[in-house]
Amino acid sequence: MQHLHRTLTLLSLFFIALVLSACSAAPTPSQNESHLPSWADTATRQTIINFVTDVSDPSSPNFVPPEARIAVFDNDGTLWCERPLYFQFYFAFDRVRELAPQHPEWETTEPFASILNNEIDKALAQGSNAITQFIVATHTGMTTQEFHQIVTDWIATAQHPTTHRRYTEMVYQPQLELLDYLRAHDFEVFIVSGGGIEFMRPWTAETYGIQPPNVIGSHMKLTFQSENGPPQLHREPEMEVFNDKAIKPVSIQHHIGLKPILAFGNSDGDLQMLQYTHSDDTPSLCLYLHHTDSEREWAYDRESHVGKLDKGLDAAAANGWTVVDMKRDWLTVFPDTD
Amino acid sequence: MQHLHRTLTLLSLFFIALVLSACSAAPTPSQNESHLPSWADTATRQTIINFVTDVSDPSSPNFVPPEARIAVFDNDGTLWCERPLYFQFYFAFDRVRELAPQHPEWETTEPFASILNNEIDKALAQGSNAITQFIVATHTGMTTQEFHQIVTDWIATAQHPTTHRRYTEMVYQPQLELLDYLRAHDFEVFIVSGGGIEFMRPWTAETYGIQPPNVIGSHMKLTFQSENGPPQLHREPEMEVFNDKAIKPVSIQHHIGLKPILAFGNSDGDLQMLQYTHSDDTPSLCLYLHHTDSEREWAYDRESHVGKLDKGLDAAAANGWTVVDMKRDWLTVFPDTD
Repeated sequence: MQHLHRTLTLLSLFFIALVLSACSAAPTPSQNESHLPSWADTATRQTIINFVTDVSDPSSPNFVPPEARIAVFDNDGTLWCERPLYFQFYFAFDRVRELAPQHPEWETTEPFASILNNEIDKALAQGSNAITQFIVATHTGMTTQEFHQIVTDWIATAQHPTTHRRYTEMVYQPQLELLDYLRAHDFEVFIVSGGGIEFMRPWTAETYGIQPPNVIGSHMKLTFQSENGPPQLHREPEMEVFNDKAIKPVSIQHHIGLKPILAFGNSDGDLQMLQYTHSDDTPSLCLYLHHTDSEREWAYDRESHVGKLDKGLDAAAANGWTVVDMKRDWLTVFPDTD
Repeated sequence: MQHLHRTLTLLSLFFIALVLSACSAAPTPSQNESHLPSWADTATRQTIINFVTDVSDPSSPNFVPPEARIAVFDNDGTLWCERPLYFQFYFAFDRVRELAPQHPEWETTEPFASILNNEIDKALAQGSNAITQFIVATHTGMTTQEFHQIVTDWIATAQHPTTHRRYTEMVYQPQLELLDYLRAHDFEVFIVSGGGIEFMRPWTAETYGIQPPNVIGSHMKLTFQSENGPPQLHREPEMEVFNDKAIKPVSIQHHIGLKPILAFGNSDGDLQMLQYTHSDDTPSLCLYLHHTDSEREWAYDRESHVGKLDKGLDAAAANGWTVVDMKRDWLTVFPDTD
């Protein structure tokens, strides 16, 4: 009897412990280690784990309260591929082809004629005005709800021109793990991209676990219209914010209102965001993805079709930022492959 | 022995239940009822409880998943008082007095001369250009960090001109309870105010439990500057977004990217935000605060020093929005008083 009683009491205590442990949000050190399985066991991975563990530890002098644990990630080339061209360009080209029957004049009007002839290099060589033209023609003139549906339908079916995979399958597995790892340590994660804010929001929740309010990007002018039907927001043919370079820290302040403590980028477009994150004596971790893997992804450096990589690597070296070498530091590149 | 054993086992089960209940985030119906103690037991309160219960109930046809439970609140006159003038104006006047020694020319330059002579009506009667002048003179020309500190110091000590209370003591107790009640039902709550985004953020977390990323407001142009010292954001003398009227739904889309399901306002400045929230057949609750209590707060209607109340009440009646009558619906107005 005495024995049975002790067993039952111990069993109850065990259940209490089990329930308490299930309720606790703080992962144990061994759980931390298992959170980044696609990261090679290199100094890079250890730098990330050390930083996250340090700022999450209430007994550390570098402790940062959860509400200030802001992490910002570039998207193109940082969370998913950007080769041979930014994926949003492929969306625009697919839209040009889809809309062409309504625009017979495009057959003889640049840059549309080149796009319809599949002469993409020729279209892009016409410069930023031409790019603005085909972006405006494909991204505006509808309500925000309509555009949301257009992107949702496209991302569900469109295929990358060389890999023939869906674009959302060309996200980086190690980064998905890093996003989860940061959230498990109560970081609030934001995308801060030069890409269109409404081009990203329809799929970032499912793909990255990042909800629409945490997506920051370039955007078109919107107008509120309540005459002739239900009130709606219309996408106007004017780029209002191009969220790149020195505008990234500005957008971070407008949207978030707190300086990030972790920033992850891969090009000159991210330089100022990294500088801003690293701009005072408070703890911060700046990461810079170097595309070094021509077999599993692409290898590129200091030149690019559409982005520039002139200053980022030099700035990383000069400032002690952590360069993530894709070939060296990532065991896996894409989900469910290699 | 048998008895002792049963007692101990029951005790253990009791602790398990206690731990489980402490871990559970979902409030029971009876807890719901106790969440709005400063709201009178009127149809208004019941409308709020019915809506929140309905959209939170997975078995309801009106169920809204947590990530889409977006609530937006105006600030001035909705979360805290706005009388006799918007509180941000008092901040600007205090700043004019503080900066006056560095600007001897203000003694003879309008609108500064009137402000320094305490002739506020005369200063405001000079119109929107004059208002812009004293706002720019008091809100720009420093880094974002410096401005944050200036507001933090002011809000900690400044007193309202007629009540002599601190401004953050002039928030509405029933609204604090409503914010908590919504968050307990997994709503994500945002402020969408015509006030300055950086004027609000230093104190909204402590006062309302609303963190900086969830504050949307008017803002000045910012520039990123990295020469001559550490990289910082500078506040430039140009109002970039005046977050009022038809701009409120636009800002909601840029910042949040989801249509709110609950909106709470009190003036014509909130009209379009309420229209947008109510613009399709999905479940929504629009609330409009009517200031009817001249004894405990202020009573005003269809005219105002600085805001307009021409259309809001009519629109509320026409659209079936819920008018919150301060005198009738609120048992308590301010925290720890009346």
